[in-house]
Amino acid sequence: MHSLALIGAGRIGRIHAANIAANPRLRLAMIVDPTTTAAEELAARHGSRVGDIDEALDGGEIDGVVVASSTDTHLDYTLRAAAAGKAVFCEKPLDQNLASASEAAATLAGLKARVLLAFNRRFDPNFAALHQRLAAGAVGALETLHIISHDPAPPPVSYLATSGGMFKDMVIHDFDMARWLLGEEPDQVFATTACLVDPAIAGVGDVDTAKTILRTPGGKLCVISSSRRSGYGYDQRIEAFGSAGMIRVGNVTGTTLETWGEGGASADRFQNFFLDRYATAYVREMAHFAEVLDGAAPCVDYRDGVAALALAEAAARSAASGRLESV
Amino acid sequence: MHSLALIGAGRIGRIHAANIAANPRLRLAMIVDPTTTAAEELAARHGSRVGDIDEALDGGEIDGVVVASSTDTHLDYTLRAAAAGKAVFCEKPLDQNLASASEAAATLAGLKARVLLAFNRRFDPNFAALHQRLAAGAVGALETLHIISHDPAPPPVSYLATSGGMFKDMVIHDFDMARWLLGEEPDQVFATTACLVDPAIAGVGDVDTAKTILRTPGGKLCVISSSRRSGYGYDQRIEAFGSAGMIRVGNVTGTTLETWGEGGASADRFQNFFLDRYATAYVREMAHFAEVLDGAAPCVDYRDGVAALALAEAAARSAASGRLESV
Amino acid sequence: MHSLALIGAGRIGRIHAANIAANPRLRLAMIVDPTTTAAEELAARHGSRVGDIDEALDGGEIDGVVVASSTDTHLDYTLRAAAAGKAVFCEKPLDQNLASASEAAATLAGLKARVLLAFNRRFDPNFAALHQRLAAGAVGALETLHIISHDPAPPPVSYLATSGGMFKDMVIHDFDMARWLLGEEPDQVFATTACLVDPAIAGVGDVDTAKTILRTPGGKLCVISSSRRSGYGYDQRIEAFGSAGMIRVGNVTGTTLETWGEGGASADRFQNFFLDRYATAYVREMAHFAEVLDGAAPCVDYRDGVAALALAEAAARSAASGRLESV
Amino acid sequence: MHSLALIGAGRIGRIHAANIAANPRLRLAMIVDPTTTAAEELAARHGSRVGDIDEALDGGEIDGVVVASSTDTHLDYTLRAAAAGKAVFCEKPLDQNLASASEAAATLAGLKARVLLAFNRRFDPNFAALHQRLAAGAVGALETLHIISHDPAPPPVSYLATSGGMFKDMVIHDFDMARWLLGEEPDQVFATTACLVDPAIAGVGDVDTAKTILRTPGGKLCVISSSRRSGYGYDQRIEAFGSAGMIRVGNVTGTTLETWGEGGASADRFQNFFLDRYATAYVREMAHFAEVLDGAAPCVDYRDGVAALALAEAAARSAASGRLESV
Repeated sequence: MHSLALIGAGRIGRIHAANIAANPRLRLAMIVDPTTTAAEELAARHGSRVGDIDEALDGGEIDGVVVASSTDTHLDYTLRAAAAGKAVFCEKPLDQNLASASEAAATLAGLKARVLLAFNRRFDPNFAALHQRLAAGAVGALETLHIISHDPAPPPVSYLATSGGMFKDMVIHDFDMARWLLGEEPDQVFATTACLVDPAIAGVGDVDTAKTILRTPGGKLCVISSSRRSGYGYDQRIEAFGSAGMIRVGNVTGTTLETWGEGGASADRFQNFFLDRYATAYVREMAHFAEVLDGAAPCVDYRDGVAALALAEAAARSAASGRLESV
Repeated sequence: MHSLALIGAGRIGRIHAANIAANPRLRLAMIVDPTTTAAEELAARHGSRVGDIDEALDGGEIDGVVVASSTDTHLDYTLRAAAAGKAVFCEKPLDQNLASASEAAATLAGLKARVLLAFNRRFDPNFAALHQRLAAGAVGALETLHIISHDPAPPPVSYLATSGGMFKDMVIHDFDMARWLLGEEPDQVFATTACLVDPAIAGVGDVDTAKTILRTPGGKLCVISSSRRSGYGYDQRIEAFGSAGMIRVGNVTGTTLETWGEGGASADRFQNFFLDRYATAYVREMAHFAEVLDGAAPCVDYRDGVAALALAEAAARSAASGRLESV
Repeated sequence: MHSLALIGAGRIGRIHAANIAANPRLRLAMIVDPTTTAAEELAARHGSRVGDIDEALDGGEIDGVVVASSTDTHLDYTLRAAAAGKAVFCEKPLDQNLASASEAAATLAGLKARVLLAFNRRFDPNFAALHQRLAAGAVGALETLHIISHDPAPPPVSYLATSGGMFKDMVIHDFDMARWLLGEEPDQVFATTACLVDPAIAGVGDVDTAKTILRTPGGKLCVISSSRRSGYGYDQRIEAFGSAGMIRVGNVTGTTLETWGEGGASADRFQNFFLDRYATAYVREMAHFAEVLDGAAPCVDYRDGVAALALAEAAARSAASGRLESV
Repeated sequence: MHSLALIGAGRIGRIHAANIAANPRLRLAMIVDPTTTAAEELAARHGSRVGDIDEALDGGEIDGVVVASSTDTHLDYTLRAAAAGKAVFCEKPLDQNLASASEAAATLAGLKARVLLAFNRRFDPNFAALHQRLAAGAVGALETLHIISHDPAPPPVSYLATSGGMFKDMVIHDFDMARWLLGEEPDQVFATTACLVDPAIAGVGDVDTAKTILRTPGGKLCVISSSRRSGYGYDQRIEAFGSAGMIRVGNVTGTTLETWGEGGASADRFQNFFLDRYATAYVREMAHFAEVLDGAAPCVDYRDGVAALALAEAAARSAASGRLESV
């Protein structure tokens, strides 16, 4: 039984709190959040107590820290918790700035820190099965990869104004998927973008549509299609083409219902809220954190955060230059 | 090159005429139809001539006769053509009366007649592939069979009034499918019926909905679901359950198009006109008739017509008695 | 917060215990099981205590009782708990004997007992959505229903020897589905059976394959296909045909993975363990019990148990007589 | 009834000959081919005669010419036939050289020539339905397009050595699809390539894998995925993403068969021979030529050939330069 402190009692923090509570190997000992009422309410629900960051890091009560606070605090909390010898579960991203993240990575390496960076899609049962079967040779040697990642609808423009841009805010997940599945580090990136969904997004200097191509030194190619709006729910599919065939992950529907009428057969709606779509992934990533607390190496850590960020920066450069950019 | 006479220049006759014309091994030599204009028009289109039944059967010009006239003339033309030594392609049914059909079968057997009875579904590429894979052991030993056969919409009530009843007019196709796929002759039948689609159908003494179960001596079971109206096109599916799994044939859509919207994914419409749905089957059954003319045994003949008719009569008895009836 | 006593610490009892523990409105106060070690282990895991039936029923500590003990004890515990004024969650079946169950139903009605009879499939999100859409008129007026319920593999023959027979042990779930979805009580049943999977099942007087047809007074027809072995996982599908189309529930696969190779496209395996297939249903039925404890009427109760049992007995009579039997 | 001369009695010529023969509005009057035996055999099969190009073009016997000879003769025959006032059906490509094709286009425009350039995919019922539904607003305003075009297996390396390169030989079809569906002329191209299938292809200076992105002035983006080998048949899918959803065309399977076993559900094989996959398209493009002979404007002509060729050249430049190239 490992005792955890949760930093951040917001939407994703509450998800992690419930998953910690339901995991027989974990105990939610402390909630840290500057918004006292949110912290108290969550503490009451799960029988834990409210504390501050110093209480969480001092002494031996807390074994691990879950960083689910605002993005700009991730790196600081992670470094402090790691310095205090705690295992860290850090919501993505580690940071929005590649230089800062790289510098922190060196520090974390020096500390031999155990940091699980929570790229949630790696823990989704569908994508995890894809990774496993590719590794098992289900399609022979992997050659090219198509990743589609279209959100149901764009977030508020006010959010986008400070989000770091589409590549760092959204495509970052897909860069991580690409690295994980390709099994070889991409070294060149081409990206081209457009603002087709909402001109207000262009108004804050961002885009809503992008097509990105990654190349690895061995010639493997990966296409990533990104859109802030699908109109039909989460569209997060991957097709992996290999020397012996193709394997793919499809979208998730609400139920297995199908209706047949004059217009043909219609399946049920696609899931369109990420907390539903990835509910199982959140459970599984917390279960992996229990393994990390037991001594396992995190299957995805701060180095993966840095590498994905480097791809995001190269993609933004390419969208501006119109040419393949080295990572 | 075999010369054929076509008896009947109606809707199905015109289909057969075009398929004969397009088959390099067959020649459409003569059209026989009491409606002179229909016969002449069809003859003009395909470069053949109008004749009468005696011209068709006398002498050696004609090698085979295609009987596509009205149902009540099938048996008579088949017997006459067989007696004249012609190969016969006869539209289903051979006859609506079991006693007459059985008697004729004895005569045809005596004549060693070559009669291809055109149960068109046997020639559909999908059902033909099902038959072949079952025979090849795709699901181990066949145990039970589910046949769904729901028409898009009912025919005119005036047609139903003289159709011979739902079992002889419509389910007859499914009795033939069942016999063909089960590989063992059913000897018991249970059927139960209802009039749910249109009360006018009950008004002419018929039903529009039926569920039928066939049993073979070895305990294989076959369920047939029949409806005069699906509301979504042809629903003609078969599922075959065996000791090692299940194999099934699905419905045919107009195209492979799929549309994704707020309500989910929608496939294209199902085909809803039997001449479209079975266009390839008509081509293939005529190609088989060319093989029969070359000397091959018909893969389905008058004996199959008699056996399906016997099942239809047993089903009607069961629907009335409420019990399993022997065939 | 309602305090519950759980009777039965076996496989299904442990599922219910975990779901009670995870439900913020329920408290697992007491475990009752003659096997002391099983009870103690489960109590330790969830922070509850071991007790006996009298402790559970006496006094006001316990609000509700979950009966998950062996089948032959269901009725007795339900009656005692109801007499003590407790709300009851009873695993299906209420009893295997129609006369006893009917007599008990009268007693329970006299007590105005609140008994949730746990037909788990009603709580499966897929079947629940089907029920809801049918009620909302998704296919117009319902006409006929096809239920397929094929288990992955048969249970041990020793279990079958005392199971009450296929209709009471297995098809009972489908009789409940049929009643629920048809919206009209079936009054006639035809069934025919075979032993095709394993002759040892015939050796203990049971069958492993059945096709059953239900009729309602209004002429609605329902076909139920039952098999103890599919060879490919849980095959539990329903198709509902109505005046305006068809709506159906399909099987559940492990993931959305699809592999394309020389042989074509292959989907992932079907789920093949009922505790996985119905995991969500168990959560949702316990959540409904919380609503019952809050004062809601159970959406399925002992009367449904009696009605399904009556259909099972009529089906067994029909399989023996070869004719439609009245319920 | 229009009389046609067919130039070229090879594989595709024989397909066109059969389709002309089966079309009641067309007559196959003459076959022109330097290989006399091929021409005579085909003429005998369809009751036409062998002639030479001068006979075909002189005088008024022939209304239209079908150019199905070797690629390097397309342009010359098309120009001569157009100059002789004949309607022309020309197999793609018009030519492999952009400068020659552009010059010829000017000549053809001056002649007001009627030239149907046979980009067969436009006539496939699935792609044609996609085009029609996009035009009808099925997904609102089109934003981005994904075209997958993976051949079952590469052609002989000897063929590739003189094929003009992957973009002109294979992706040309997809450039035409993109132009047709986007409804706006792409003006920028990025492409990146690899040789992953067979190093012998690199040995003749070609590639076997490419990912291409087209941009239109309005910001519409189109991704084309190209591979010389899928390992599972023809993979020719298109997904069109718009402001109101997505519409796509899938692959074509041999039958609607599905097999369910321990490993899950498997569909039937994908079609893997282009003459099967596009059989209907060849029939429909010849039917359109009959309309052109009746006076209709060709729905795709030499200008489309020039535009697709320009995209192919720009893609090749981009693959070399690593940057977006203007068309």
